[in-house]
Amino acid sequence: MRNDPDEVWQRLQRIAQITTGSGPGVTRLAYTESEREAHRLVAGWFEELGLQVYTDPVGNTIAERAGQVPGLPAIGTGSHLDSVPEAGRFDGIVGVVAAVEVARRLVGEGIEHAHPFRFVVFAAEEGARFGQACIGSKAAAGQLTTAALDELQDAGGVKLGDAMRAVGLSPDRLAEAAWDGKDWAGFVELHIEQGQVLETAGTSIGLVDVVSGSTRLELTVRGQASHTGGTPMHLRSDALAAAAEVVLTVEELANRPQCRGTRATVGRLVVEPGSITTIPGTVTFAVDVRDVDSDRQRAVAAEIIDAARSVGARRDVLVDLRLLADTSPVVLPARLRQLTTRACRDLGLSYRTMPSGASHDCQMINAVVPSALIFVPSRSGLSHVHTEWTEPAQIVAGIDALAASMLLMDAKSRSIRVRTARAA
Amino acid sequence: MRNDPDEVWQRLQRIAQITTGSGPGVTRLAYTESEREAHRLVAGWFEELGLQVYTDPVGNTIAERAGQVPGLPAIGTGSHLDSVPEAGRFDGIVGVVAAVEVARRLVGEGIEHAHPFRFVVFAAEEGARFGQACIGSKAAAGQLTTAALDELQDAGGVKLGDAMRAVGLSPDRLAEAAWDGKDWAGFVELHIEQGQVLETAGTSIGLVDVVSGSTRLELTVRGQASHTGGTPMHLRSDALAAAAEVVLTVEELANRPQCRGTRATVGRLVVEPGSITTIPGTVTFAVDVRDVDSDRQRAVAAEIIDAARSVGARRDVLVDLRLLADTSPVVLPARLRQLTTRACRDLGLSYRTMPSGASHDCQMINAVVPSALIFVPSRSGLSHVHTEWTEPAQIVAGIDALAASMLLMDAKSRSIRVRTARAA
Repeated sequence: MRNDPDEVWQRLQRIAQITTGSGPGVTRLAYTESEREAHRLVAGWFEELGLQVYTDPVGNTIAERAGQVPGLPAIGTGSHLDSVPEAGRFDGIVGVVAAVEVARRLVGEGIEHAHPFRFVVFAAEEGARFGQACIGSKAAAGQLTTAALDELQDAGGVKLGDAMRAVGLSPDRLAEAAWDGKDWAGFVELHIEQGQVLETAGTSIGLVDVVSGSTRLELTVRGQASHTGGTPMHLRSDALAAAAEVVLTVEELANRPQCRGTRATVGRLVVEPGSITTIPGTVTFAVDVRDVDSDRQRAVAAEIIDAARSVGARRDVLVDLRLLADTSPVVLPARLRQLTTRACRDLGLSYRTMPSGASHDCQMINAVVPSALIFVPSRSGLSHVHTEWTEPAQIVAGIDALAASMLLMDAKSRSIRVRTARAA
Repeated sequence: MRNDPDEVWQRLQRIAQITTGSGPGVTRLAYTESEREAHRLVAGWFEELGLQVYTDPVGNTIAERAGQVPGLPAIGTGSHLDSVPEAGRFDGIVGVVAAVEVARRLVGEGIEHAHPFRFVVFAAEEGARFGQACIGSKAAAGQLTTAALDELQDAGGVKLGDAMRAVGLSPDRLAEAAWDGKDWAGFVELHIEQGQVLETAGTSIGLVDVVSGSTRLELTVRGQASHTGGTPMHLRSDALAAAAEVVLTVEELANRPQCRGTRATVGRLVVEPGSITTIPGTVTFAVDVRDVDSDRQRAVAAEIIDAARSVGARRDVLVDLRLLADTSPVVLPARLRQLTTRACRDLGLSYRTMPSGASHDCQMINAVVPSALIFVPSRSGLSHVHTEWTEPAQIVAGIDALAASMLLMDAKSRSIRVRTARAA
């Protein structure tokens, strides 16, 4: 039995209906009621399949199907349901819908496995609200600090911990969300590529070897707001003109030949007071530097900081700096990639090994559980926009690869157990 | 009798209490309930002095003190009460408080005048909400078209006419707001300088000979939003990087030696979707070009448009353009400036003739009634910010000059009448 593309599409559409905001696309920010509603919807789907569902103190939802052999560690899959503003219907969601569809296929076909299978919906993967990505999976990896609950704030000044409390979660029990590595055998995430490599190559599946790190800075430029008519050019401290220089420098630094692979972006920039007749007094903007090379990632971030300071000194504006997040690139274990590769080969799916430019929950999870990441194509490489698209049939191919990978992982462990039993 | 600086300060403070928004300073946008509330407050002050008060269909409030000689045209003064976002307490307000204080002094001292004196509070002088400045005074000058009621919209898509209706005004009776030039002898506006000329020179009063024109453009740059991690640098159409180039070009063009006197600014710029992990897809920004030389004003605006188009072509982004407003510089009549000059000389106030970089209601009114503009100093030249400041004693000096100018205008007309009567 294969999964039905129409059913996959229906589930994606059902989740996309849960959105706030009036713009195009889906807006379902981390730790909002809309994210919780999406978690409850998916929890219901798992419950309908007879699975036990549990929500941890920081909002990760975990459904379990018991294995045949007691005491074995779990094999997991999953992704996230939160989104950036005006997002598409696929980023994260595809991995969650895939988890549901794998569970449905196992239950429907009565396929048993030795290990327990866990289907995970992580909370707050997108950094859009709190500047830091993978908050739920970071907690699961035991790497979210209690200090971060107070330190991380959204644009409205709401602290991460308070945002969790406001939707009924229990950040004070953060430690309980941490996974015990001994309790898990492996984790496989399915995700859309969010780039153009698979589409350009006409390949069905990407098998990720390394996930880019990301250094995120917030810069605040403070000049002097004043009247656009009354203030001569030579007496100005225009915060936007200064910020514009830094925006172009960010691009220029990442465009150098020695930075092939570096991706540096100013995605958010706010001008205050923002009136047509007032010289901008304050401009706040965020820089995201990604790289698979951790040294180059930090070097480019440092060059951006230097450039901003020198623009500030030359233009007589103040430049304040805040490090929002800093994660290193993560190399995923070759052992698991061999399994996902074999799954693709068994299924006759075209595949290629590739890096991931985007962050994913599995890179956090990999700190405690060996993890693999499977990509399906993104049309025109577009993501974080409402025009994001992957054909449902392409998703079904990814679900095939995911299910086969999990069952291979289960079988491989069984063969080890069988050999061990014979040897005893 | 001179006016009391404390009383002037109390009135400014009372008006400053009427504000929306939580940021620093005063926010009282055009055609909002807060602007109307300020008009009602000031109307009440005029009524307490026994003056007739009338609000015209577009929200200009006019108080009249009758003159001694029936049938003579009116002498007027006044300014506006609306503000830009996070504004100070002085821009516009000083001219309205001065009008109240002149009326109070005339009534209090029983000073009579041959001509009727009219005290005017114009609506919607700031272009902050609808992109176009001096909407109320433009209507009074008979130059606001009915088409503009539909064409001008705020950032939320609310049309000018609908905004007027929402606060109980009657834009359909726009024509009734137009002043008949024969009904007016002259108009004098008192305003803060919004620049540093008077402060630097240690001069009390500025007498304006020419008011800058202003060309206002809205540019929309459309690139391609996508994921900051998934999209390589060479495959991007980053709308913000393109806009940043235009922001710097605007500054560069106005900084050329041949543009001494030109002031060009990007004061408002909005990035969409505005997420740290999404390459900006759309950036909308406004350019304000001011100049006392109308040819240079239009030439610089045209150069900005050319530059934006060439950036768009080179970066493969679309650049849309909208002309928000275009007013020519206005030379104010020398005859009235001779009167305001004589008033300063009679009072022993230091003064200088100077241009105005900012737009003012009197430049519209000058199209139908000969007008004069009197400046008082602005501390550090700051305006359109909450740190805007003019000492109450400096304002009182301005009120002295204003009252003396109006009475000189009245007396001069009387001497003409006397001479005419003798000749008859």
